[in-house]
Amino acid sequence: MPPLSKLIAIVAGVGPGTGASVARKFSSHYPVVLLARKPESYESLAEEINSNGGKALGISTDVSSKEGLAKAVEGIKKEFGADVAAAAAVFNASGPFLRKPFLEIPAETFESSLSVSALGGILFSQAFLPLLLKGLESSEHPPSLIFTGATASVKSNAQMASFSTGKWALRALSQSLAREFGPQGIHVAHAIIDGVIDIPRTREWLKDMPPEAKLSADAIANDYWWLHTQPKTNFTWEIDLRPAIEKW
Amino acid sequence: MPPLSKLIAIVAGVGPGTGASVARKFSSHYPVVLLARKPESYESLAEEINSNGGKALGISTDVSSKEGLAKAVEGIKKEFGADVAAAAAVFNASGPFLRKPFLEIPAETFESSLSVSALGGILFSQAFLPLLLKGLESSEHPPSLIFTGATASVKSNAQMASFSTGKWALRALSQSLAREFGPQGIHVAHAIIDGVIDIPRTREWLKDMPPEAKLSADAIANDYWWLHTQPKTNFTWEIDLRPAIEKW
Amino acid sequence: MPPLSKLIAIVAGVGPGTGASVARKFSSHYPVVLLARKPESYESLAEEINSNGGKALGISTDVSSKEGLAKAVEGIKKEFGADVAAAAAVFNASGPFLRKPFLEIPAETFESSLSVSALGGILFSQAFLPLLLKGLESSEHPPSLIFTGATASVKSNAQMASFSTGKWALRALSQSLAREFGPQGIHVAHAIIDGVIDIPRTREWLKDMPPEAKLSADAIANDYWWLHTQPKTNFTWEIDLRPAIEKW
Amino acid sequence: MPPLSKLIAIVAGVGPGTGASVARKFSSHYPVVLLARKPESYESLAEEINSNGGKALGISTDVSSKEGLAKAVEGIKKEFGADVAAAAAVFNASGPFLRKPFLEIPAETFESSLSVSALGGILFSQAFLPLLLKGLESSEHPPSLIFTGATASVKSNAQMASFSTGKWALRALSQSLAREFGPQGIHVAHAIIDGVIDIPRTREWLKDMPPEAKLSADAIANDYWWLHTQPKTNFTWEIDLRPAIEKW
Repeated sequence: MPPLSKLIAIVAGVGPGTGASVARKFSSHYPVVLLARKPESYESLAEEINSNGGKALGISTDVSSKEGLAKAVEGIKKEFGADVAAAAAVFNASGPFLRKPFLEIPAETFESSLSVSALGGILFSQAFLPLLLKGLESSEHPPSLIFTGATASVKSNAQMASFSTGKWALRALSQSLAREFGPQGIHVAHAIIDGVIDIPRTREWLKDMPPEAKLSADAIANDYWWLHTQPKTNFTWEIDLRPAIEKW
Repeated sequence: MPPLSKLIAIVAGVGPGTGASVARKFSSHYPVVLLARKPESYESLAEEINSNGGKALGISTDVSSKEGLAKAVEGIKKEFGADVAAAAAVFNASGPFLRKPFLEIPAETFESSLSVSALGGILFSQAFLPLLLKGLESSEHPPSLIFTGATASVKSNAQMASFSTGKWALRALSQSLAREFGPQGIHVAHAIIDGVIDIPRTREWLKDMPPEAKLSADAIANDYWWLHTQPKTNFTWEIDLRPAIEKW
Repeated sequence: MPPLSKLIAIVAGVGPGTGASVARKFSSHYPVVLLARKPESYESLAEEINSNGGKALGISTDVSSKEGLAKAVEGIKKEFGADVAAAAAVFNASGPFLRKPFLEIPAETFESSLSVSALGGILFSQAFLPLLLKGLESSEHPPSLIFTGATASVKSNAQMASFSTGKWALRALSQSLAREFGPQGIHVAHAIIDGVIDIPRTREWLKDMPPEAKLSADAIANDYWWLHTQPKTNFTWEIDLRPAIEKW
Repeated sequence: MPPLSKLIAIVAGVGPGTGASVARKFSSHYPVVLLARKPESYESLAEEINSNGGKALGISTDVSSKEGLAKAVEGIKKEFGADVAAAAAVFNASGPFLRKPFLEIPAETFESSLSVSALGGILFSQAFLPLLLKGLESSEHPPSLIFTGATASVKSNAQMASFSTGKWALRALSQSLAREFGPQGIHVAHAIIDGVIDIPRTREWLKDMPPEAKLSADAIANDYWWLHTQPKTNFTWEIDLRPAIEKW
């Protein structure tokens, strides 16, 4: 019998928030591949994981580019072997958007938002589902494809269309994939992050509120890990996550 | 007092089904502009309307192109005057898609589906909302921006992702616009067409079922007209439409 | 051939708002039966309709009582003949509720809210669906069973549980009945009234807002009539209705 | 400083499925109170837990009776002290229902279904929220109130109204309580069990399918435990749970 494939986890959209926490969490179980457009988004994290006894490989890539993702897969195979398989793939990227009156938003903003949030999720899934399917034979937990959503994945407020259009499309993608790949053993899930995440960029937000008014990125990572460990008798497609004191 | 602007209705995605019926219905109240990629999609309809005492102007345009839409607006102003206003704009276009296993669908299919269904809806709205806002002063009924959705706007089945991603994005757009432009007096609505429409292309479908197993395109047009005539005390954002015997 | 049955419309929950407007609207097409617990809720309306050339029969009944409804049906048959049929039945009743902290609401409030909004809708449907089914043979428009919902039919806010529990149950009822009786030709619909209706009781509300900040009860009645006239190729199960300037 | 209150978990609707698994799971952390109408529903389970080093107290009660629940609380205080507090309360009861044509279902079936699924959930919450609030001071994890839902909590199929009306009402209750009590630190959650649970009663169902075609009750219990351990920065209100191969 040939040795089982090496199992890895891939995280796209690694920054100082959810992506990093998820990568850290999964790195204690699998080598992790960190995808981000700019190397500075993953370099220190990769270093941290590698120096803590884990294994991390950072790859600079644009998830809205099919060719970029193909090169990322190539880089992964070079590092982990041509028969590399995935236990988890987490899509945590979002396109840039503007919260402005609709008629003041350039068409380009909508285009680039859709190209990351919607098309990016599609291309990411097409790139890594083959590795997840290969993971079926060796992964202890059902190979998992997890998408990070937001309040704007289920509610489309005024002036939020350049964000919500992509996020609704991504949610549609995740639901369709859950229905197609669930029966094949892949766990596809979607998380609605409904609140402000406590990261450096949001340090000054909600300052008059108690600290627990923000979501913990590490706790989101725990929730993603919980999704990953659900047995195939009990798959959850969607969870919502919000601070206890959040108004919704 | 200067004379009030000329009020028109614009229908994008005119083919032999819903688009044509909507154009016919609205043409008994307003001159109608028929947008489609290929002239053969609107030529006979324009002729029919013009010879029946109505007024129709067909313009060949690609709704996924900002420049194309700008030229269409130019053509409209040339025909109806620079101060033309709109009483209604109906977005009835959808991108091509494939009902196939996800990993067999080319990235290009997703791209072109998103570029028509999602980006097309965005660009159409940016092109014609200024005309609708101008219509506020003279339109008897609240100027209306109506989007045609589908079952796949609210449910994302296996193998349907190349359709549903764009349709969910379009629904998000319509909800955000309803919230932003409703208070300005524009009625934004979304119709979920949940079933097969009775058009030449579907003549052979559901042949073992009674004729009322398919939606009537003319009845859809009546429903759009009803949406258009709702007063601003009573706006409906969303309706679903299906044959009585449809399973859902 | 025996003469076709007499077609009537039944409205439960007739007060000075939606119920009265719906009854007035439908009374120009059908004799109407007005159901309310207290005669003073329908007396002046019945008089008005009867003196305007319409025909109205008020019956004092409690929709949460099976026996009460059976007696109402008896009264209807006495008036309109044993073979009376219905073209429309509108359930517009709601139980009393309290907007208060959950632990301060007496169990009795929940019980009576459920017994009107939920059980009342069930008993009303069981009482009048037989008449609607009989209406199939003679009604020009598909016999219609319409339920009045509210914001609280789709959103369950803090302190609103004594209202929303009954309203969600009623929405569930309407969806199930739409799926069961639609194929039999009965049009079952549910309207989400999302805002304040302009009635005597709300005269003092939203006084700093323009008059169109409130829903018009007469316009709701028009919408119900539109639902009633949809052909069986194009049934709408659910509409939402709100003032253009409503935040949602 | 007075000693902290004794923390217990309460499970209503203990039978051979989810209720028993949840009770077993939580019994390794807390003494558990087992509520069921008939003693035979909890007797062997209580014995099993007590003989395994845990602590279980079975109480025969009808959740649709306010007085019955008051007596249960009394019994709990007698056993665990007047200052007893709760770390978790799980409402897992459903009323009886009939899957039949609507007009063939006796009114009594609807009444008893609503009185358990809807009113039962309300009365259970009113009885045990005070104990959960008392648990705030001593519980390691946020005191949790968890409701068991079903496919019929979000979809109301033909002939299912006698089940879905109660389940939609229960979901409304859970959403309202999540919004009211979340800010007070109580974690209110709702689980949509979307499939057949593998219990003795369903042994013969889906026999031509692989064993993982059914939900595992023990895995549901793990999911409920995971909900219970979420920190108050990251509360999930709703999860869906279904076998990987389930069609939905």
